[in-house]
Amino acid sequence: MGVRERERVGRHRRGFLRYGAALGAAFVGSHADPLYAQRPENSSPTLADSTKKLGAPVGPYGERARFETAVRRQAKTPTNESSWTFTPLEDSRGIITPSALHFERHHGGIPILDPAKHKLMIHGLVERPLVLTVGEIHRLPAVSRIYFIECSGNTLTEWEKPTESGVQGTHGLTSCSEWTGVPLSLLLIEAGVQNGGTWIVAEGADAAVMTRSIPLEKAMDDILLAYGQNGEALRPEQGYPLRLVIPGWEGSAQVKWVRRLKVVDKPYMTREETSKYTDLMPDGTARRFTFVMEAKSVITTPSGDQRLPSVGFYEIRGLAWSGRGAVRRVEVSTDGGRNWSDARLEEPVLRHAHTRFCHPWRWDGRETILQSRCTDESGYVQPTREELVKQRGLHSYYHNNAIQSWKVSASGSVRNVHA
Amino acid sequence: MGVRERERVGRHRRGFLRYGAALGAAFVGSHADPLYAQRPENSSPTLADSTKKLGAPVGPYGERARFETAVRRQAKTPTNESSWTFTPLEDSRGIITPSALHFERHHGGIPILDPAKHKLMIHGLVERPLVLTVGEIHRLPAVSRIYFIECSGNTLTEWEKPTESGVQGTHGLTSCSEWTGVPLSLLLIEAGVQNGGTWIVAEGADAAVMTRSIPLEKAMDDILLAYGQNGEALRPEQGYPLRLVIPGWEGSAQVKWVRRLKVVDKPYMTREETSKYTDLMPDGTARRFTFVMEAKSVITTPSGDQRLPSVGFYEIRGLAWSGRGAVRRVEVSTDGGRNWSDARLEEPVLRHAHTRFCHPWRWDGRETILQSRCTDESGYVQPTREELVKQRGLHSYYHNNAIQSWKVSASGSVRNVHA
Repeated sequence: MGVRERERVGRHRRGFLRYGAALGAAFVGSHADPLYAQRPENSSPTLADSTKKLGAPVGPYGERARFETAVRRQAKTPTNESSWTFTPLEDSRGIITPSALHFERHHGGIPILDPAKHKLMIHGLVERPLVLTVGEIHRLPAVSRIYFIECSGNTLTEWEKPTESGVQGTHGLTSCSEWTGVPLSLLLIEAGVQNGGTWIVAEGADAAVMTRSIPLEKAMDDILLAYGQNGEALRPEQGYPLRLVIPGWEGSAQVKWVRRLKVVDKPYMTREETSKYTDLMPDGTARRFTFVMEAKSVITTPSGDQRLPSVGFYEIRGLAWSGRGAVRRVEVSTDGGRNWSDARLEEPVLRHAHTRFCHPWRWDGRETILQSRCTDESGYVQPTREELVKQRGLHSYYHNNAIQSWKVSASGSVRNVHA
Repeated sequence: MGVRERERVGRHRRGFLRYGAALGAAFVGSHADPLYAQRPENSSPTLADSTKKLGAPVGPYGERARFETAVRRQAKTPTNESSWTFTPLEDSRGIITPSALHFERHHGGIPILDPAKHKLMIHGLVERPLVLTVGEIHRLPAVSRIYFIECSGNTLTEWEKPTESGVQGTHGLTSCSEWTGVPLSLLLIEAGVQNGGTWIVAEGADAAVMTRSIPLEKAMDDILLAYGQNGEALRPEQGYPLRLVIPGWEGSAQVKWVRRLKVVDKPYMTREETSKYTDLMPDGTARRFTFVMEAKSVITTPSGDQRLPSVGFYEIRGLAWSGRGAVRRVEVSTDGGRNWSDARLEEPVLRHAHTRFCHPWRWDGRETILQSRCTDESGYVQPTREELVKQRGLHSYYHNNAIQSWKVSASGSVRNVHA
């Protein structure tokens, strides 16, 4: 092992141990702290005899334990096809969202597309129109990236007053996956964009024919034509067999079941970028093409609907993300915003990905308010609700990235409040 | 955006575009190359009307598309409980293995453990024996890390001659997940290791009571007491509700369904570290406690049982990993080992994690042999089969990390060979 390698391994170990030491100090040596029960059986425990009964056999495709019941909760909408479901962030671990729990938003239900028949057309202002099969796309050079996708309607109901009781409802329209696909730039280079081609119009093969206009510049930068999610094919509700993944931009632009990309000279002003997915400002004008999801964070543990069982040590945990790039800093307040401390960011901290933060906290049993605040690599700081409303008014609907407050009562119950 | 941030974003974009440009060059402008068919409909494609039929509704817990059929293939063993299954690496995307496809190895089947009843005991040479419930462990400071787990029996049948036809059989006993859990060091500090405590004995709650001895030094370094996998609870076949995750070490030591950790003064010489999981050397002695999985790589596309449909452009893809830390380099040979080129490593390149490599290749239609060779950050280079056999003989059984050769025939079919 060379000097550089030793240093690298050393840094890794020191980081791990430093965290252990810091947090160990929070509960080690505090044996009066009922973090765990001091039980009589500690000195002479009884273990059941597990040798009398064989376990279950191996299997071709695994399922989760039947004791686990976290599910995507459905929004109250007139139909089940034009609807959405929320990721249960309160049960999240790490930064990957299980594909089975990735939030959904469909405008006309999930089309069942046979990958042997589905094709993608690239046409419009191009030299060589292309029609590619899914098999042909699988042969092309591909990359994998861990990216969050957030619906611009995430936290939509919380502008005026707290409405959703838990973090699944307030923030569950964001999820994070490892996406695999072909850089769209490769296909656009292959098709040959003509002079004047400055936007693309992406169209889905769903019953709503979801259609969005996207600047060509972003398409040439880092958009993926994705077919893989978390190590296997896209899930049907995430656009199987092909979708756009647009790092850091609002979910609705990341067209699922994509079948057509037309290179054009201007945005097409589709329904989804005029009557929907625009922000009504205080002066009555509308913000349009607000693609970037700005820095946001939320504490997932403890969060609304949870209850702290006793005073003592807790690890505050949450997720932060920014459409502008990487999260640089997350601060946590355990006294309603009077004091802020830097939370520890879990590795890896990746651009346009969920970043997990953790912060040790000793609850003294008194009522208090927990908050988190994200700063991204562009220097942008997540605003308070007051700051956001001052800028955007109360009819903006989408793009609510305000600081979230959770009130811990003396009984240990946690609820959603506007602090 | 400050100067540092601009540089960082710049690096990211340049990396993405450089790859695009390099690989674009491999197929752009080569319109005679039948990478995709030049179809008549390219200039006037027909799109089906998708608006007449609503899709499927949103759902609480997703399932993969019914067109996807990749499964864990089971080894031929006398029983289904003491058996193993292989991850279908040929279908892998990115570095995360879907939990449903993570390889399995059970010695007495999968115990069904109720997390409300399961407990972990830490005892032996400690000041304060602990018995912790799963709920108590969930409250402790936790970390998440992306790590591979490889069975030391991976590639076990390939010492003397090629036996398995595809990469699932030759290399499918390795998988990679994001694991979440408590650093074991925290619990050992809390229990207070007594003088003389140098090993721990970990015991599972399965019917085989899988038991392994592990050096305390590693436990104090980076072992996790894990309860999360890929964003949700451990899958039952991965040790639900608690297992050890031991970065870079052989899978059998990473005891699943763990119920007991005893701090002791020496290894316990259990069945699994004497009659099993040792390596018989040419001189008749046995290597024991060969915990570290050394650097290894394999090309997954193209791999055995696949067929190249035509001459032209292909992206060679594969996975590399090392129990000694991070992968530093992967080389690919497309001529049976005469010439080697550096493959591109996909980000993120993480210590003790699968690392994806990609390499553009233009197949000219002639018979050839594809190989990959991994070098890790310790400088260790993956050996050829000849080099490995020279050191270890032919009865070593476990820990076969030799370079894998895939022969492409003139017909495009790919098969497992010893080159």
